[in-house]
Amino acid sequence: MTTDSALTPEQILSATEEVLRRFGPAKATVVDVARSLGVSHTSVYRFFPSKAALREAVTQRWLDQAHHELQSIATEPGPAADRLHRWLVTLFAAKRKKALDDPQLFATYMALVAETSTTVEAHVGTMVAQIGQIVRDGVRAGEFGPTDVASTARAVFEATAHFHDPAHAGEWSDPSAQDRFEALWKLILGGLTIR
Amino acid sequence: MTTDSALTPEQILSATEEVLRRFGPAKATVVDVARSLGVSHTSVYRFFPSKAALREAVTQRWLDQAHHELQSIATEPGPAADRLHRWLVTLFAAKRKKALDDPQLFATYMALVAETSTTVEAHVGTMVAQIGQIVRDGVRAGEFGPTDVASTARAVFEATAHFHDPAHAGEWSDPSAQDRFEALWKLILGGLTIR
Repeated sequence: MTTDSALTPEQILSATEEVLRRFGPAKATVVDVARSLGVSHTSVYRFFPSKAALREAVTQRWLDQAHHELQSIATEPGPAADRLHRWLVTLFAAKRKKALDDPQLFATYMALVAETSTTVEAHVGTMVAQIGQIVRDGVRAGEFGPTDVASTARAVFEATAHFHDPAHAGEWSDPSAQDRFEALWKLILGGLTIR
Repeated sequence: MTTDSALTPEQILSATEEVLRRFGPAKATVVDVARSLGVSHTSVYRFFPSKAALREAVTQRWLDQAHHELQSIATEPGPAADRLHRWLVTLFAAKRKKALDDPQLFATYMALVAETSTTVEAHVGTMVAQIGQIVRDGVRAGEFGPTDVASTARAVFEATAHFHDPAHAGEWSDPSAQDRFEALWKLILGGLTIR
């Protein structure tokens, strides 16, 4: 039982994830979330004005789970090639972990993601901007060749879709996935680097 | 009405596609196919020993529709970079045409593809081998840097998944798709080329 006054958005989102896991995205309601927290549904609506807003917020939170770590890599000092490699490895590991550790929750979120294309677009935009930050650093340092940073960043993101886009999740448990990722990375790095 | 003696596998496969289109993959039967050709189902079984074999064959035919054209590009003379670019553009155009011109048939085949992973593996194997052929020519001509041909060919295929894997079909009508493909191509070409 959570007292109404102590209720935080984070608690609501965690409870929402649990309710989604238990009832599935088709059946989960705001009332279920409120009940699981021992508060009234109006308390939930104080933070999230509609069921759609709550679903979007919990989806965003799930999508952005690895953002903090990725953002650190995008902004820290060091050679751009190392950072971009680490950034992509971290993204792949985070996505793969979500897909393989809890396939049921992953499927649940996939259903939610399909409802909210703007949430996904924002997520992809953040990812591409982080890659852009590293590419820009690399170009400035003379490590990467001169390039249109925005379109190159998107190309890097799309070139690696196999290893972060949930559409390819079925291939992530393949034992050769890591080797194939490294072969792809070599190709991309060659495309970026001044030799 | 097709006379039994003149029946060809190609006719059966075309009729199967029409039946799949009309009844959907869940309901279409071998008897429906035979009926649409005016032959008995035993005539169909002479060419395709089971319903599963028939479905696999029609799926294979659909997947391999652009193979002939792609194979020509893979084997013709000329600079490897031009040929690889043309090969990828042709593959993207063929896949996009199938997805956008007849979305219902595309969805039908997507359902069939999901049933027969070996068919898809064979299809992907053929594609990767064709890329490998071009990459090998490029390396021999000193146009591309020395590389492990097989893993590089697979990396090129996976790097361009955005533009040929049906999982991404939803993004192919995007007006920026062509520009994004070219940005990706530049990155890949840079990775392959000796500069």
